[in-house]
Amino acid sequence: MVREHGTELTAQMTALGKAAKEASAALALIPADQKNQALNEMAKAIRSASAQIQSENAKDLAEARAAGRPDAFIDRLTLTEARIGAMAQGLDEIADLADPVGETIASWTQPNGLEISRIRVPLGVIGMIYESRPNVTADAGGLCLKSGNAVILRGGSEAIHSNRAIHAALMRGLREADIDPNAVQLVQTTDRDAVGMMLAGLDGAIDVIVPRGGKSLVARVQDEARVPVFAHLDGNCHLYVHSSADPDMARAIAVNAKMRRTGICGAAETLLVDEACVPTHLAILVGALIGEGCEVRGDAAAQEADSRVKPAVEEDWATEYLDAIIAVKTVSGLDEALAHIEGYGSHHTDAIIADDLKAAQRFLREVDSAIVLHNASTQFADGGQFGMGAEIGIATGRFHARGPVGVEQLTTFKYCVYGNGQVRPA
Amino acid sequence: MVREHGTELTAQMTALGKAAKEASAALALIPADQKNQALNEMAKAIRSASAQIQSENAKDLAEARAAGRPDAFIDRLTLTEARIGAMAQGLDEIADLADPVGETIASWTQPNGLEISRIRVPLGVIGMIYESRPNVTADAGGLCLKSGNAVILRGGSEAIHSNRAIHAALMRGLREADIDPNAVQLVQTTDRDAVGMMLAGLDGAIDVIVPRGGKSLVARVQDEARVPVFAHLDGNCHLYVHSSADPDMARAIAVNAKMRRTGICGAAETLLVDEACVPTHLAILVGALIGEGCEVRGDAAAQEADSRVKPAVEEDWATEYLDAIIAVKTVSGLDEALAHIEGYGSHHTDAIIADDLKAAQRFLREVDSAIVLHNASTQFADGGQFGMGAEIGIATGRFHARGPVGVEQLTTFKYCVYGNGQVRPA
Repeated sequence: MVREHGTELTAQMTALGKAAKEASAALALIPADQKNQALNEMAKAIRSASAQIQSENAKDLAEARAAGRPDAFIDRLTLTEARIGAMAQGLDEIADLADPVGETIASWTQPNGLEISRIRVPLGVIGMIYESRPNVTADAGGLCLKSGNAVILRGGSEAIHSNRAIHAALMRGLREADIDPNAVQLVQTTDRDAVGMMLAGLDGAIDVIVPRGGKSLVARVQDEARVPVFAHLDGNCHLYVHSSADPDMARAIAVNAKMRRTGICGAAETLLVDEACVPTHLAILVGALIGEGCEVRGDAAAQEADSRVKPAVEEDWATEYLDAIIAVKTVSGLDEALAHIEGYGSHHTDAIIADDLKAAQRFLREVDSAIVLHNASTQFADGGQFGMGAEIGIATGRFHARGPVGVEQLTTFKYCVYGNGQVRPA
Repeated sequence: MVREHGTELTAQMTALGKAAKEASAALALIPADQKNQALNEMAKAIRSASAQIQSENAKDLAEARAAGRPDAFIDRLTLTEARIGAMAQGLDEIADLADPVGETIASWTQPNGLEISRIRVPLGVIGMIYESRPNVTADAGGLCLKSGNAVILRGGSEAIHSNRAIHAALMRGLREADIDPNAVQLVQTTDRDAVGMMLAGLDGAIDVIVPRGGKSLVARVQDEARVPVFAHLDGNCHLYVHSSADPDMARAIAVNAKMRRTGICGAAETLLVDEACVPTHLAILVGALIGEGCEVRGDAAAQEADSRVKPAVEEDWATEYLDAIIAVKTVSGLDEALAHIEGYGSHHTDAIIADDLKAAQRFLREVDSAIVLHNASTQFADGGQFGMGAEIGIATGRFHARGPVGVEQLTTFKYCVYGNGQVRPA
């Protein structure tokens, strides 16, 4: 029976992959207007299905409560009228973005007259694997459509009723714009084996996997995937206060970088402070953080600066708290700060506060992270804040999509060459 | 004993990876002048070691002859004075290329004053796995150095003496320019298990694998690698002669695309000819190819056009001959040509010959290959011919390096953000 079930699931998932691949070929060539019309129709369909989406969401919520899920989980799962409206608005905003497909990235003419250009084309089929937030169904569906990619959505089983209702609305939008509904497919089964099949690529149908969720999900995806993955595992972001930093700016940025939202990947997790400015800056920084409700775990200097500071242990330097906790360490200067970040960081986002521009330039040059900032909060690590519009995630890989992954990062390119009869000399 | 040997090899390879990673951090920050000096010194060292390289090469050649290797193999392995000179010149030419590292790819200012730029940075550590051509040792070493990457070179065991001698010269060049010699390391053992360890990434030290060699090598690498691979498995390239094609241009390009060099990945393997121009073009095309010594395997129309044409079977459409053989098929028009290429092609390089610009534009837009050409030979699929300077290979993946892989493709980027105290609003 198990065997039979496996075979059936394999057939089902393979068919999903095949349909996505077919849809993606057509989708790559669809004009911007038609995709935008579909996005607006999807938004409209979601708004008009709001009551139904909420009643399906109530089923998921009842199951989650019965299973004794924590409040934060219930909150992520909950779809209110306002959240459904925001989801629809997100789709309208994606429609307003520039279409990346067909853009000429570069072009030049060779001495023999060959006109060469790099033209942006979609990636193909994107496998999206996510957890409890049902709004990802609409966000990812919209971003993939805009960038000309077919998508296979696999949300968490805890949100399956919500996801099905949202997906049904997306399908109505696609049909209204005469686009193959297989462009945006939802895995209807909650069988966990479906995830493994997606990670194996569905017979070559999937070009990239984008995971969105907790660390254990991302770790599993990075470990098992046989196709490329756009993701980041850790966001152990550093804020380094250089001796030349303005104390007020350092304080304001430290509080924002840590406390604006503690659960996002761009939140600062370790504050490094130059020895030279310990007397002038450290008490202000630590006091401001504690005043905002942050737990501070620090080295001896930090504990001396404020008696409320708890002692930090080795593990603290490597921890992404994703909570109102920060580790504080004094360093002898830029060299030690760079070494600390190289040793403990996760190549995601790191910032320096300094009036000394030379020090800042060296920091930005030498810190090997996807995003490095001078005199600004690490919480700017976000596609929207970068002016890219919505993002599907943030990647720390060294290839292709790095940093915020928006519609442009969901594309690749091809070389188009125009000649007039050129042959290659021996 | 086997176990002990394995442990020792693991330790050896892990140390190699660690040294490369350390060298790469320094290499990423080295100025262009110093890298160029090293490249020129490497060229000089190779020239002055020519006699020694040839005598080491003679050992490899003697072993290859004793093993009864075919002539083509012996030819690829042979290093003459002229070939050693060309290798050195290649390094000097790489020195003359623009340094991609530190280049600003894009920059913009956000409404809140944040100045964001994408800056080109090296990939890190490149694992190069190749077969019998010893010149790859110098070419790959030079390209990786120029792009600020450390490289671990693993050549074929059949060229180990030659590779060691070339590598020793490269090391002398690095030392002359005060660059850590671990920037360019050669795997000294011929143990095949070393390849498997590189494909596993050497404890996270290797960022990308570039295989260069026959199809079985590339297939193994793509199958086993746990890190990204820049490669192409097949180059089943098509030349499509549209009904509007100028017959003389079609003939000249067909002969060049197939016969200029039959063993390269950009060589045409299938010729598609529009039904409408069978009476006017087909006999000319087939006759010219046969006249140049090419075996033609064709469908009924091709056989009718020239009695020397052999019948093609289904397998011919899928075959990359890499030899003086071509498959010829008539198609009803652009639609059938596109479907044939999608069905049998390898997304590498495909070309259309047409006077009808609309047809050409549709072909270039719809054929999903890394390189698509109009009125030019498929043999232009080459980094040098694209104006990129030397290339380390050609990739058909959909990510990052696609098409010819030159120094620019051996880099990635980071976002550098300059602010003046910005914090992110709630």
